[in-house]
Amino acid sequence: MKIAISGKGGVGKTLLASLLSKTFAEAGYSVIAIDADPDANLASTLGFPEPDKITPISEMKELVEERTGVKPGQAAPFFKLNPKVDDLPEKYSLKQNGIQLMAMGRIKKGGTGCYCPENALLQALLAHLLVARDEVVILDMEAGIEHLGRGTAKAVDKLIVVVEPGRRSIETAYRIGKLAQDIGLQNIAVVGNKIRSESDRESLISSLPSFEFLGFIPYDQAIVDADLANLPLLDSSQQIITEVRNIYQALLSSVQTPNTIN
Amino acid sequence: MKIAISGKGGVGKTLLASLLSKTFAEAGYSVIAIDADPDANLASTLGFPEPDKITPISEMKELVEERTGVKPGQAAPFFKLNPKVDDLPEKYSLKQNGIQLMAMGRIKKGGTGCYCPENALLQALLAHLLVARDEVVILDMEAGIEHLGRGTAKAVDKLIVVVEPGRRSIETAYRIGKLAQDIGLQNIAVVGNKIRSESDRESLISSLPSFEFLGFIPYDQAIVDADLANLPLLDSSQQIITEVRNIYQALLSSVQTPNTIN
Repeated sequence: MKIAISGKGGVGKTLLASLLSKTFAEAGYSVIAIDADPDANLASTLGFPEPDKITPISEMKELVEERTGVKPGQAAPFFKLNPKVDDLPEKYSLKQNGIQLMAMGRIKKGGTGCYCPENALLQALLAHLLVARDEVVILDMEAGIEHLGRGTAKAVDKLIVVVEPGRRSIETAYRIGKLAQDIGLQNIAVVGNKIRSESDRESLISSLPSFEFLGFIPYDQAIVDADLANLPLLDSSQQIITEVRNIYQALLSSVQTPNTIN
Repeated sequence: MKIAISGKGGVGKTLLASLLSKTFAEAGYSVIAIDADPDANLASTLGFPEPDKITPISEMKELVEERTGVKPGQAAPFFKLNPKVDDLPEKYSLKQNGIQLMAMGRIKKGGTGCYCPENALLQALLAHLLVARDEVVILDMEAGIEHLGRGTAKAVDKLIVVVEPGRRSIETAYRIGKLAQDIGLQNIAVVGNKIRSESDRESLISSLPSFEFLGFIPYDQAIVDADLANLPLLDSSQQIITEVRNIYQALLSSVQTPNTIN
């Protein structure tokens, strides 16, 4: 299964990516968590001690070229055959507690360019990667909508949009829904975050009537405190972990995975 | 004066851009507020009723070409001479309460590309635009750090980074500081937002010892409520307006404007 997590800045994409990664790993899945935001926080949220040791996906193109003799961007196969997860060289990831962490690109020097090449490579990797029944790829996207213009998440089985109570993240969800349609991505669902009351929950549901809701994560001061204290956010709240297990179950029932191998 | 507002997603960039625009306008400045985030909210936060009526800056290139016979991207002058604010055609902005609102680009179709061309055009406009003593340009940037890779805000007099209590927005501030140095932008300052206590304030100051602080905006439930009720956020809190006036004063004392005309 391939899942991408999107939404307005600050709604809790990285939190959900981390919690889902952990939940899938605990259920016995091999998890590949990919940080696709150049302003990246997934590694620290997951509690990886040395994220800088990962060679980013952007540097895979040299590997592809070396192995196949084909330059990325040329007509011929971009990735040699369709790689399985096991084929990905170890240096492109760090592993901890059943979660394999990959990163899209290094921070560039100011003024040296955009992240278009990295997004193109990630898109090709996602499209060609064969994921077995017990494997899941979880993509933590950059804030906003530009990645949808780039079509980075085109090949996922589910695009999750995180929303919080408040008009602005809902507007972003509609924009994402519209853009996802443009690229032929129909499996979109929403997760509500920072829910303080039943009325928060109801207002989100009534604001997004055409969207599937996978679940709701309560607002929890413990998360804010863990963040301030520079602690991994994962073990901070039992209530949240329970809700994320429900989201995990909803995902399993909702996703059809035609490109899963055995 | 040219000001850009940056920071992690969700910290309150658009709120600060709106409040500063309003404060400068009330002090008698002509304000050009530019929404440089494709996932844009500045128009609705400022209370503009029909933001879709603005022709975005991205379509200015046709105008430039038409007037000068030079295609953008070619060697010759990108904008004809150095335009003054008054030279910008009216159709590229909406005006209300002394604030002229411009937008960087329209939302594209999903999968059709990135916002690199728009950013290049905005960068050229910022670099060449002559701003008079009583004029101010306020740029609401996209979340994160990619715009710094693109160098969009290279030509501003002050880059403001909005931070909130919490490690992640501070990490982003450091990344922005580093990237800004790369593009030769030295006038950086920080504004703290969502401040709930004196300890929030102190923890931000001690986390960012090398940064200039322009001020601190208190957390205010009225802002959250106004957002939920779909109201403009500007008139929601007297306490916040007072703090933003202090930030405005701090800006005036702190910014040297060598490129100001009389």
